[in-house]
Amino acid sequence: MNDFSKTSIEHLIRPTPLPASEKKYLSGSRPDIRVPYREITQTETRIGERKEANPPIPVYDCSGPYTDLNMAVDLAEGLPALRAKWIDERNDTELLSGPTSEFGQARQADPATAHLRFSHIREPRRAQSGKNVSQMHYARQGIITPEMEFVAIRESLKLAELRADPRYEGLLRQHAGQPLGANIPDDITAEFVRQEIAAGRAIIPANINHPELEPMIIGRNFRVKINGNLGNSAVTSSLAEEVDKMVWGIRWGADTIMDLSTGKHIHETREWILRNSPVPIGTVPIYQALEKVGGKAEELSWELVRDTLIEQAEQGVDYFTLHAGVRLAYIPMTARRLTGIVSRGGSIMAKWCLAHHKENFLYTHFDEICEIMKAYDVSFSLGDGLRPGAVYDANDEAQFSELRTLGELTQKAWEHDVQVMIEGPGHVPMQRIRENMDEELKHCFEAPFYTLGPLVTDIAPGYDHITSGIGAAQIGWYGTSMLCYVTPKEHLGLPDKEDVRVGIVTYKVAAHAADLAKGWPGAQMRDNALSKARFEFRWEDQFNLSLDPERAREYHDATLPQEGAKTAHFCSMCGPKFCSMKITQDIREATAAGQFEGMQQKSIEFRQKGGEVYLTGDAS
Amino acid sequence: MNDFSKTSIEHLIRPTPLPASEKKYLSGSRPDIRVPYREITQTETRIGERKEANPPIPVYDCSGPYTDLNMAVDLAEGLPALRAKWIDERNDTELLSGPTSEFGQARQADPATAHLRFSHIREPRRAQSGKNVSQMHYARQGIITPEMEFVAIRESLKLAELRADPRYEGLLRQHAGQPLGANIPDDITAEFVRQEIAAGRAIIPANINHPELEPMIIGRNFRVKINGNLGNSAVTSSLAEEVDKMVWGIRWGADTIMDLSTGKHIHETREWILRNSPVPIGTVPIYQALEKVGGKAEELSWELVRDTLIEQAEQGVDYFTLHAGVRLAYIPMTARRLTGIVSRGGSIMAKWCLAHHKENFLYTHFDEICEIMKAYDVSFSLGDGLRPGAVYDANDEAQFSELRTLGELTQKAWEHDVQVMIEGPGHVPMQRIRENMDEELKHCFEAPFYTLGPLVTDIAPGYDHITSGIGAAQIGWYGTSMLCYVTPKEHLGLPDKEDVRVGIVTYKVAAHAADLAKGWPGAQMRDNALSKARFEFRWEDQFNLSLDPERAREYHDATLPQEGAKTAHFCSMCGPKFCSMKITQDIREATAAGQFEGMQQKSIEFRQKGGEVYLTGDAS
Repeated sequence: MNDFSKTSIEHLIRPTPLPASEKKYLSGSRPDIRVPYREITQTETRIGERKEANPPIPVYDCSGPYTDLNMAVDLAEGLPALRAKWIDERNDTELLSGPTSEFGQARQADPATAHLRFSHIREPRRAQSGKNVSQMHYARQGIITPEMEFVAIRESLKLAELRADPRYEGLLRQHAGQPLGANIPDDITAEFVRQEIAAGRAIIPANINHPELEPMIIGRNFRVKINGNLGNSAVTSSLAEEVDKMVWGIRWGADTIMDLSTGKHIHETREWILRNSPVPIGTVPIYQALEKVGGKAEELSWELVRDTLIEQAEQGVDYFTLHAGVRLAYIPMTARRLTGIVSRGGSIMAKWCLAHHKENFLYTHFDEICEIMKAYDVSFSLGDGLRPGAVYDANDEAQFSELRTLGELTQKAWEHDVQVMIEGPGHVPMQRIRENMDEELKHCFEAPFYTLGPLVTDIAPGYDHITSGIGAAQIGWYGTSMLCYVTPKEHLGLPDKEDVRVGIVTYKVAAHAADLAKGWPGAQMRDNALSKARFEFRWEDQFNLSLDPERAREYHDATLPQEGAKTAHFCSMCGPKFCSMKITQDIREATAAGQFEGMQQKSIEFRQKGGEVYLTGDAS
Repeated sequence: MNDFSKTSIEHLIRPTPLPASEKKYLSGSRPDIRVPYREITQTETRIGERKEANPPIPVYDCSGPYTDLNMAVDLAEGLPALRAKWIDERNDTELLSGPTSEFGQARQADPATAHLRFSHIREPRRAQSGKNVSQMHYARQGIITPEMEFVAIRESLKLAELRADPRYEGLLRQHAGQPLGANIPDDITAEFVRQEIAAGRAIIPANINHPELEPMIIGRNFRVKINGNLGNSAVTSSLAEEVDKMVWGIRWGADTIMDLSTGKHIHETREWILRNSPVPIGTVPIYQALEKVGGKAEELSWELVRDTLIEQAEQGVDYFTLHAGVRLAYIPMTARRLTGIVSRGGSIMAKWCLAHHKENFLYTHFDEICEIMKAYDVSFSLGDGLRPGAVYDANDEAQFSELRTLGELTQKAWEHDVQVMIEGPGHVPMQRIRENMDEELKHCFEAPFYTLGPLVTDIAPGYDHITSGIGAAQIGWYGTSMLCYVTPKEHLGLPDKEDVRVGIVTYKVAAHAADLAKGWPGAQMRDNALSKARFEFRWEDQFNLSLDPERAREYHDATLPQEGAKTAHFCSMCGPKFCSMKITQDIREATAAGQFEGMQQKSIEFRQKGGEVYLTGDAS
């Protein structure tokens, strides 16, 4: 029926949880609000004869039913429509009798693609005439939607409960954050979520035609999120591979997935991905539009793109990257750049502008685009078509001119109550990263910033997950809400599954480091638990608590493969004879036994007397 | 004769330059000052019929003769003694008749280790009685040594010459740095080097018994350096492997190598490494001392350590990590930490202090240590024995108490004109990294800071080169002079060659990103050259200019293996049909043809009128 049958992907996916992990759910105010999280079980601490239990650690989880042993996923059926009732109850949408886009209709009637088609295509849904179904619209009317409550619970992750549990007391201690202007409350309430969305500081990308979605939020005052890209291209990769990459990407922690397909069967690939994706899916609609005109940018038209937007909105795409800020007047500013225009979408629009010598039609038709967005609740991801492609071109006139236009468009979108995030660079040396964040906050009125890296140097192709992870951690700390991952293959080739995994884990590191720096409540708990496990030689817990348990175990076993080494009180660094961790146990015992009595006091007195004196005698 | 014969390492090493690279030398004021660098050749740019040559790019190089086609290296012979004449001419040293350390003498006479022994052991050299042979001592007397001139030329890397060459004009443009207090001149002169060393802000680790050394400098106002570790341990790895790792490490860019061996034949391994190393070698002498007492820290004594320092100084070790700041009074401060004392050297000293309830003998005998250091010009790397082993423990009382003591010891060392750098953490969340640098500059009087990472989160074992690379780039920017690498195996196992390569390249990225951020003169040239090559689809140049050309090529070929794809004007992202880079060529041509005439002016006028107005009409 479809090309899944020809690949290694099975229709029926057997859920595979991460090690020592169980998928659990938190309930909201109504039974159908069931917020997923992952609970990592720990073993007990053994010091001599003494045994102490270690509590389970809850972690944010975006892997969907694919890691829930109580679920069975049939890719050909798609995921359950969690949000269908919520959308229906709002009573502001209508069920259409079929796709309203010309392309969607033609594609559905095309016998040539029948074998690729997802078999359970739902009727698309659209706002009733005159209605606005965006989360921002509800928020501004004071309505807390189930989606808002869902993300509030998801962001909080049982924190109030853990705070009241003495087993977590030490684990919840953390350094004060330096939020740099972020305003993170101790408790994330649904009302706080509503306020942030109403203000435009956060978005919940949640198309009414993607009811399978587990809602998540993107905003400066929430956990920093990451995006993973996939997509077949003219050169390589198939439909089944892309669905497999999506499942793989969310397993390692992608909060959203962008489908950047440019090859054949974009429409069908997207349908399969959407029906099986618990995370928001973003696209760059102009990529598909370009395919429709045989790759000739000059043949693009507003009418064609409009049809594509509707086609994709009715499939359920949650956010659109649109390069509406690439204005004709900015194009010559790129002529003296080292690497010109490197954004694919940006250069498509530039080429169109150039060929017709007219203003960008996404800019001139922006109001009409907003009308489409609010009829399905598609969020804008306003593309940075003029982002720098080399550190040389960072923060230049072209880039910042476009950014100011994105701010202007943000205000326009907000007049329509349409959700917006702003895309950012790219390649930026470290000393100029902060300026990007500051300019965005100022000119785009604190709309969520969504950056690619930035890469802090251009000299390490093959390691650009790292050059960009360095920049991503910093800009995440400075206030970026979502970080678009970069894989080791960036600039060189298309990522395979291993590249996707490495790219995502690298970006989980960057996002988490940013959460720690901003002082996100409870962020340090997992660090503390893992470090305690490390210190107590609980090797299994150390693996299980890590972002990539399989990799951690594999690296450990490369040196000490024996099963006994995973319970041994030593590691490969010092070997069994001497262990620095062991010394601390001795110090604790000596301190407890009063051996240092009076010494701490003496030390303080010594310092108070300004005593940086060099002593040759013993202090004892 | 030695265990090289039993391994895959050949005595005779065939030099293997990196692709498209040639080892060249710059001459100093005397013919025997020959400063190595690597020159990367570029292909020509072809745009239509037009051809333009691209100039060669010189890069800093620490790989030694192993990448020079005109050299032949016989590991059993060792490298040429470049500095022998300089040392000899100073006329302040004496040649000893043999090792003066008891252990060195015993080891040389031991038939059991004869088969492992390096066969061309030189007589050791020592300062004449009453003399001080440290670079700091010369600097303070106003003497510019050949070593100082060497590093001045090495840091400058032909910059004055390139500035006068029109081919480099565009390539030398770069963003203004944000040096955060660093004071980097436009031209690095030997006199500037002398001043920095005299002030203690920089060191040239250069033991008089390591004449094979190509001198390099570590200081805040110079290029940021990186260190790679190697070492056999009680658990794994052999002598030959360690020499091989050293050659491998410097190939990828390690500026210094620390030999952290803890297993058998430490003395012999070190001799082989030193005789074949063009970069400074550092050690932690207490590791070997501990082996000498069978791993029982409480049996250590000042006399034993003293003999070990002399043993290693007479072999040629360039810097010693000594945990002299782990004072008895600070030990109980670690009792309430999450991970206690994680520094191996720190915990050895703590255990000794604890067992004897006496002050750290490295602290009480610090003056005597200085006497040894200045007799051979061994530099201090004052160890941070109380560095945090978890983000939880970052910046605590124990850590900063030790840091203040390191400052006190720095002043003491400087009274002896002994060179000093200060070791730093460790595990630190991003928002608390800057404080580490600021405290170090303040309390250690701007002595060079040498940090391990820091790791910005604890939750990613298997990816700790990345968690630490993020911290390293930041602290490098803030003023750290040398970054100690971390490999993917950190916390899990011992690194193999592939781990060493990944760790080093990651740290080259961090160090280079820091150089860019500080505004190091000419730092951006390689980025610019690589980005220009990328933009012009000069794939071979893109690979060759990268930090790891082999990896870049391998990743490219994974998607497009055909030889033709390396000259093709497209990549695997967009395929041959559409290319964003191509568009920019069109824009340049349109701009040159006057198509945008008047538009830039209009755009400026528009902005000057405060025109952030939303226009629906075309601007053309």
